[in-house]
Amino acid sequence: MFEKFLSHDVQYLRSSEIRDLLKLTEGKNVISLAGGLPDPSTFPVEDIKRIAEDVISSKPEISLQYTPTPGITEFREQLVKLASLRGITGIDPTNTFATVGSQEALYMTFNLLVDPGDYVAVEKPTYLTALNVLRARRPNYVGVPLTPEGPDLDSFESSLRRLKAEGKRLKLFYVIPTAQNPGGTTMNLNDRKRLIELAEEYDFLIAEDDAYGFLVFEGDSPPPLKALDRSERVIYLGTFSKILSPGLRLGYVIASKEFINELELLKQNLDLHTPSLTQMIAAEAIKRGVIERQIPIIRKTYKEKRDVMLQAIEESFPKDAKWSRPVGGMFVFVWLSEKFDTVKLLEEAMRRGVAYVPGSSFFYDYSGRNTMRLNFSFPSKDELRRGVEILGKLLKEVSA
Amino acid sequence: MFEKFLSHDVQYLRSSEIRDLLKLTEGKNVISLAGGLPDPSTFPVEDIKRIAEDVISSKPEISLQYTPTPGITEFREQLVKLASLRGITGIDPTNTFATVGSQEALYMTFNLLVDPGDYVAVEKPTYLTALNVLRARRPNYVGVPLTPEGPDLDSFESSLRRLKAEGKRLKLFYVIPTAQNPGGTTMNLNDRKRLIELAEEYDFLIAEDDAYGFLVFEGDSPPPLKALDRSERVIYLGTFSKILSPGLRLGYVIASKEFINELELLKQNLDLHTPSLTQMIAAEAIKRGVIERQIPIIRKTYKEKRDVMLQAIEESFPKDAKWSRPVGGMFVFVWLSEKFDTVKLLEEAMRRGVAYVPGSSFFYDYSGRNTMRLNFSFPSKDELRRGVEILGKLLKEVSA
Repeated sequence: MFEKFLSHDVQYLRSSEIRDLLKLTEGKNVISLAGGLPDPSTFPVEDIKRIAEDVISSKPEISLQYTPTPGITEFREQLVKLASLRGITGIDPTNTFATVGSQEALYMTFNLLVDPGDYVAVEKPTYLTALNVLRARRPNYVGVPLTPEGPDLDSFESSLRRLKAEGKRLKLFYVIPTAQNPGGTTMNLNDRKRLIELAEEYDFLIAEDDAYGFLVFEGDSPPPLKALDRSERVIYLGTFSKILSPGLRLGYVIASKEFINELELLKQNLDLHTPSLTQMIAAEAIKRGVIERQIPIIRKTYKEKRDVMLQAIEESFPKDAKWSRPVGGMFVFVWLSEKFDTVKLLEEAMRRGVAYVPGSSFFYDYSGRNTMRLNFSFPSKDELRRGVEILGKLLKEVSA
Repeated sequence: MFEKFLSHDVQYLRSSEIRDLLKLTEGKNVISLAGGLPDPSTFPVEDIKRIAEDVISSKPEISLQYTPTPGITEFREQLVKLASLRGITGIDPTNTFATVGSQEALYMTFNLLVDPGDYVAVEKPTYLTALNVLRARRPNYVGVPLTPEGPDLDSFESSLRRLKAEGKRLKLFYVIPTAQNPGGTTMNLNDRKRLIELAEEYDFLIAEDDAYGFLVFEGDSPPPLKALDRSERVIYLGTFSKILSPGLRLGYVIASKEFINELELLKQNLDLHTPSLTQMIAAEAIKRGVIERQIPIIRKTYKEKRDVMLQAIEESFPKDAKWSRPVGGMFVFVWLSEKFDTVKLLEEAMRRGVAYVPGSSFFYDYSGRNTMRLNFSFPSKDELRRGVEILGKLLKEVSA
C-alpha cells in the first residue's frame, strides 16, 4: 500500500554497500576490513570534553542557540586558519561554509550543479558514497582511470577533446587528489597544475574531496588543488571526521562567494544550519592547537597500521595480486587476477571471519570485479594480521 | 560565468524571508518580533554541560564515533519514552529516526513523497520554511483555510470530494495541529479524529509537525494525530529545539518501519547520520528527566510573555484588527483590515525600530497581505511592550 506514495526520485536512492555490510558483521565474530572508521584511540577525548564544557558554559547563547546558515563566525574564522595549514590562502570567512560532515557538502554540491544528462567526471575507482549521491542526479559519466600516480590525465584529456568534438561539455570533475579513497594514490604537483589548466581550458568545475589531506604520513602532502586555483573553479570539501571526531559530523566547504551563496539557499531548506555546538567545539579545537597536536599522532598510528597490513598482504596474498602502497589515508586497494569476482567471494570470506568491500562498488559502471578495498585504520594490528592472513589463504585456495 | 554551472533545481530554491529579515536587523537597534528563537533563559545550560562531559568521557566510542544512519539505539529508545509523554504508544525504536532538526525531517519527507504535480494540502497560513521546501518539489496545492479552531475540515472535505470527482488524488497533508505556526490555533480532539478518518477514506498520508506539542501552556494539549493513527498514515515530526536547545539541531521522525527505511536510504546520501554527540546528549537529557523538568519552566515563561504581548496588542492595535490567542507555541498572528499591506509596511516599521514577519510569506499563494506574525518567545517583556506599542502606533497612523 505504501509504494504508491513514494516520489520517483526514490528509485535512484541506493543503499550504501559499506553500511549494509557493516550491518551483516554486527555482533558477529568477523574481523572487518570493510569499514572506514577512524581509530578511536586517536580521538582527543579529554580535550573535547574540556572544550565542550567551556563552550556550553561560557557561550550558551551561541552554542545552544540557532545560528546563521553558513556557519558561526568564530568557526568560519578558524576554518580560514585550518585551510592555511593546507596551503590555501587568499580566502576569508565568507569563502567558507559549515556542513553536517563532508557528506552533506557532497550532497549539496551535486544537487546544486548536476542535472540529469550532464557530463560529470569521476575517478575509476572513486568514493562509493559520492557515487551514490551522484547516481541520484543521473549524470553521464566520464571515467578517469586511476594509475599508481593518480588519475590518468592523458586519458582524461582525450575524453575532454572527444566531448568537445561532439559539441558536449564536461561540467564537473569530482576528484580525491590526496590519499585517494579507495585507490590510495596521491597526485604529484605537476599533475595538479595540469588538472587546473585543463579545467580552465575546457571550462569545467572541480569538486576536490580532501578528506585525507591531513593524513599523509609518508613524504610531504602536496598542496590541494584549491591552493593552486586562480579562477575559483575548485570547490574544496573538508572534514573533521578524520582529524578530530567523526561523531561530530562536521565538514566544510571552501569556495567562491557565489557558490557559498547557493549553498546557503539550499541549506536553509535542508536543515537550517549545522549544529552550533559541534561548530563551537571544532573552532576551539583549532584555536587551542588540539588539531595541530593531534595530526602527527594520527599519522604515526596509521603509518604503523598500514605497514602491518602491507607486510601481511606481502606474506599471504597470491603472487599475481597487485595492491596500492598508500602514503596516507586509511585504505589499501587490491587488484587480483582477472578470474576473481570479489562480490561472489565475500560470503565465503565472511564465513571464515573477515569482511572487505568489493571494489566494484567504487566504479560508476560496476567494473573492477577483481578488486577489493581493505581498511587499516580501525582494526587492531593483531586483527589486521589475522584478517589479511585468512583472506590470503582463501584467495590462494580459489587461485589454485 | 557561474550561472551556467547551476542545476535547474536551483531556480526553485527560495531564501527564507525570516532569515533575510534577521540579517537586516543584525546589529541594529531594532526590536525583532520577527524571529522564532526560544528564550535562552530556558536552556538548561548546567544540565547540558554536565551531560556533555559525561557522554564524552564515559562513551567516546559512541558519542565521538560514526554511528548508524537511523540513529543511536540509546537515543531511539529514549524517543519512544518521549513520544509516550505525548500519548504516542505502540511503537518501538525502529519506528523512530534521528534528524538534523525537524527541518531535515521536512526536507526528507517532502523529497521522498512529493513529485512535481502531486496534490499536497497545506494550511493557509502554514510554516514558511516547510513551504519553501515544498515549493522546490513543485506540487499542486490544496489550501485549507485556518479558522480559530484550526484547519477548516468542511472546506478540506469539499476539496477532497472535488479532487476525487476530477479523478485526482491528494497525496499528503502537511499540518501543524497544535499551537500552529503562524496561526496559533490548536485543533480539538473531534477534529483530529475526523482528520484521521478523512485520511483513511481518501487514502492520503499526513505529515504532522508537532514542534510545539510540549509547549501548550493553557488547558491540556490534545493528543497528536500520531496517537490516533491506526493505519500508519501519520508521519510525526518532532524537535528538541523548543524543549532543550535549538543549537543541537536535533529532530526526529516517528513513522511506519517502511517509511523509516526510505528515510535511511536518503539520509545515507544526505549526511550519513545525525551527529552522535547531540543524540547522546538528548538521550541522557530524557533519561535524567531534564526535559520533563524543563517543560513546565518553558510553559510558564512563554505564557507570561504571551500575556504581555496580548495585553500590549489589546492596548495599542487598531480596533478592527483581529489576532490569535494562542494556547501554546511562540507566536501571535494578526489579521489587519483589508487595506493594509504588511509587506510594504515593514520598511517603515523597521525604521521606527520594530520588525515582524509579513504574513503573506506563510501563504502558499502569497495571499494574506493584511496579516503579520509576531514572536513573543525571544524578546524581553519590556521589548514586547515597546515593540508592540511602536507597531500599534504605526498601524493606527496608516489606518487614519
